[in-house]
Amino acid sequence: MSELKRVALKEIFKGGLIDCDATVKGWVRSVRKSKKFSFITISDGSCQDNLQIIADETISNYEEVSTMLTGTCVAIRGKLVSSGGRQAVEMQGMEVEVLGSSDSTYPIQKKGATLEFLRDIAHLRPRTNLFGAVFRIRHALSMAVHEFFNDRGYFYLHSPIITAQDGEGAGEMFKVSTFNPNDIPRDDKGEIDYTKDYFGKQTGLTVTGQLEGECYAMGLGSVYTFGPTFRAENSNTTRHLSEFWMIEPEIAFADLEEVADVARDFVKYLIGYALDNCKDELEFLTKWNKDNSGLIDTLEHVRSSDFIKITYTEAIEILNASGQKFEFPTEWGAELQTEHEKYLTDVHYKLPVIVTDYPSTCKAFYMKQNEDGKTVRAMDVLVPGVGEIIGGSQREESYDKICARMDDLGMEKEDYWWYLDLRKYGSAPHGGFGLGFERMLMYVTGMSNVRDVIPFPRTPNNAEF
Amino acid sequence: MSELKRVALKEIFKGGLIDCDATVKGWVRSVRKSKKFSFITISDGSCQDNLQIIADETISNYEEVSTMLTGTCVAIRGKLVSSGGRQAVEMQGMEVEVLGSSDSTYPIQKKGATLEFLRDIAHLRPRTNLFGAVFRIRHALSMAVHEFFNDRGYFYLHSPIITAQDGEGAGEMFKVSTFNPNDIPRDDKGEIDYTKDYFGKQTGLTVTGQLEGECYAMGLGSVYTFGPTFRAENSNTTRHLSEFWMIEPEIAFADLEEVADVARDFVKYLIGYALDNCKDELEFLTKWNKDNSGLIDTLEHVRSSDFIKITYTEAIEILNASGQKFEFPTEWGAELQTEHEKYLTDVHYKLPVIVTDYPSTCKAFYMKQNEDGKTVRAMDVLVPGVGEIIGGSQREESYDKICARMDDLGMEKEDYWWYLDLRKYGSAPHGGFGLGFERMLMYVTGMSNVRDVIPFPRTPNNAEF
Repeated sequence: MSELKRVALKEIFKGGLIDCDATVKGWVRSVRKSKKFSFITISDGSCQDNLQIIADETISNYEEVSTMLTGTCVAIRGKLVSSGGRQAVEMQGMEVEVLGSSDSTYPIQKKGATLEFLRDIAHLRPRTNLFGAVFRIRHALSMAVHEFFNDRGYFYLHSPIITAQDGEGAGEMFKVSTFNPNDIPRDDKGEIDYTKDYFGKQTGLTVTGQLEGECYAMGLGSVYTFGPTFRAENSNTTRHLSEFWMIEPEIAFADLEEVADVARDFVKYLIGYALDNCKDELEFLTKWNKDNSGLIDTLEHVRSSDFIKITYTEAIEILNASGQKFEFPTEWGAELQTEHEKYLTDVHYKLPVIVTDYPSTCKAFYMKQNEDGKTVRAMDVLVPGVGEIIGGSQREESYDKICARMDDLGMEKEDYWWYLDLRKYGSAPHGGFGLGFERMLMYVTGMSNVRDVIPFPRTPNNAEF
Repeated sequence: MSELKRVALKEIFKGGLIDCDATVKGWVRSVRKSKKFSFITISDGSCQDNLQIIADETISNYEEVSTMLTGTCVAIRGKLVSSGGRQAVEMQGMEVEVLGSSDSTYPIQKKGATLEFLRDIAHLRPRTNLFGAVFRIRHALSMAVHEFFNDRGYFYLHSPIITAQDGEGAGEMFKVSTFNPNDIPRDDKGEIDYTKDYFGKQTGLTVTGQLEGECYAMGLGSVYTFGPTFRAENSNTTRHLSEFWMIEPEIAFADLEEVADVARDFVKYLIGYALDNCKDELEFLTKWNKDNSGLIDTLEHVRSSDFIKITYTEAIEILNASGQKFEFPTEWGAELQTEHEKYLTDVHYKLPVIVTDYPSTCKAFYMKQNEDGKTVRAMDVLVPGVGEIIGGSQREESYDKICARMDDLGMEKEDYWWYLDLRKYGSAPHGGFGLGFERMLMYVTGMSNVRDVIPFPRTPNNAEF
């Protein structure tokens, strides 16, 4: 093929490239053949739109070109012209080179593949319009995360993945080891001798980077993590992954109000970023599924809304005054369940809601204790349609109080010596929150199964690819 | 304290905030007491510079203030005034509140702590000037990675961490399991029954995201990973980590020349970004260690240099013509060792060097085979002072050729069914490379131990924090 630098379809659809020659490269979506010419549609992944190329029989390899199968990879040189079709521009093909052929066993044929089926070919699903949209949005929201925090003076922290710490004091952790399972070293008493394992102790995969985030907040001021976290729970639901990405900012000198404000601004920023940068993708998703038809309106609504802020105690009062029948109890002290959260966001307020000051019994050991002796300075952000999307808190900065709480819970303080040091030396008010990135993506894309918003999902019995 | 919104020191040193009241919060570096007033120096992590506050005896709690210990956390309200000292601005303190005290056991006293000692208190080391500098640069370079690729139309890919695949066909992997090691299920033959493990098969921690990156490049065009990768090798050196962060772009339709150009542009961009955004940090690092005095000059030199490009065969010729005595052999077919790489970059060219077309025996199975039947389209980027910093290649896109190579190496093709699918359906020329993020950070900061450029290093026998 005559040498012309490849132009991404995204550049073509931006406009301005009309009546000029160009070379495009991509994968064939369809070829419609008529007697004297064929319509070829290709995608190259750079944007949502596909390009239509008209190739007529004067092309030297017209026979080959007009019979190309879906999935074929091509390079096409031609002239870009304005079009009266669905796209403002199309190409008059002059030269077509097949870079890689396809065949009839190619699993992604034109229509009708189910999401379940596409999950089994997760290595090919990024070639579809649907998953192209989802993963371009995933990229855009990742950028948004970094831009939001960078613009506000936060530093990105790579918290450790392999850890000996169980950050939440509760999560089920994957074990990490280099032991030969057929020959595990044991001590005199027959106990496993972890001092002989790779790290000299028992280790697993992190469930949170928060504790390490606090160390860095106490040095750099404001930090955030954005990395993989793990749960070894046997949860086979549409909302759980064994491996997922989490964002955890931690802010020195912040009280709960500031933490809640940052969380609200962050959610709005991410949504606004998607609306501003992924218009074509969101429009595709809106049309793709009838249940999604209100997607863009919902996102616009949240972007421009104030968030309601109520205490847990007020939330309980609202639920009890609702006259609604709930499956789970709503007396003071009970956990807020998804049905309760949805009532608050979807029925009562029709807005995102931030609930604060939960009973200490519902929350983790590190949260700042209120004067009332019953509640902690916790905060959850609930959004319409999804429920809890962010959980956070002001942290207990008092050495004595956090020690007392750990004692109450029967925790081993020695395991947290470094975490307690933060309260011993120059302690400061501080707080932060965690956002499950895939939860946010489900909300923004309207995808209803979390396995469809992460490239290669890991769930019980599934670690393919 | 009278309510004034906290101002970060970074904002103060930007200039413009003179002769106005402000509240600052941070950690005490030192208090120098004289009869009628004290000089307090604080840092807040937002920037390299510390702020000096003059507090005189009219402050109500002057006795407490003048005896504050290093590490104390304070909030100070005062008036910002121009100064004749090292900084252009200082503060006349009006009110000082101790937020968290320190004591004489605080491990970071004024001077002289060794890097080894600070590694043992990795939870506190971000409070030092040195590690503040290093980790602000780490943040800046992370942003630079995302900006570089986003600006060029690449999509960020979160490749999986837990995997059943050994990407390189060689690396030593950490095992991931939820088996109770005291009660591992076994089949009839007494073999471990991995179908009963969490993922239904044997899994480990990823050594590379490249293969998954290729899947996405064949759909979205250009992608990059930036995530943690793992090596279970028992390497206790200043250059090896068990857990480190890697950046792996993968580019559809790219040949080796394009891959090399992107790698060169990327290295220059990262270096330029640090020079433009971390001037104070780099100046601190230049002064901190005599061996580092040329750091900024070296970085400026690389930023403005062309990169030399030679083939492996040419490199061997240069080494053999050098008259230099090397420890390791330099006949054609031998691996290039660090001593060889350093000769090329530090002695022969005094410039970064890209070496291409290595013997296939030195390189991985997936690299594109040259016509000569002996070499592959591989590429390493070598930089002065460090050696190899990037390794990459054009990938073999021919189904038949890659299968033949896998057969030669005795690899199980069934394990790679999905990877081979990429060559079966719409294969395209493509390539990419990997950059070890900590290697790059060592180069940019001049730190000589990789454990000092990652927040919480994981190495054999060390997974503390």
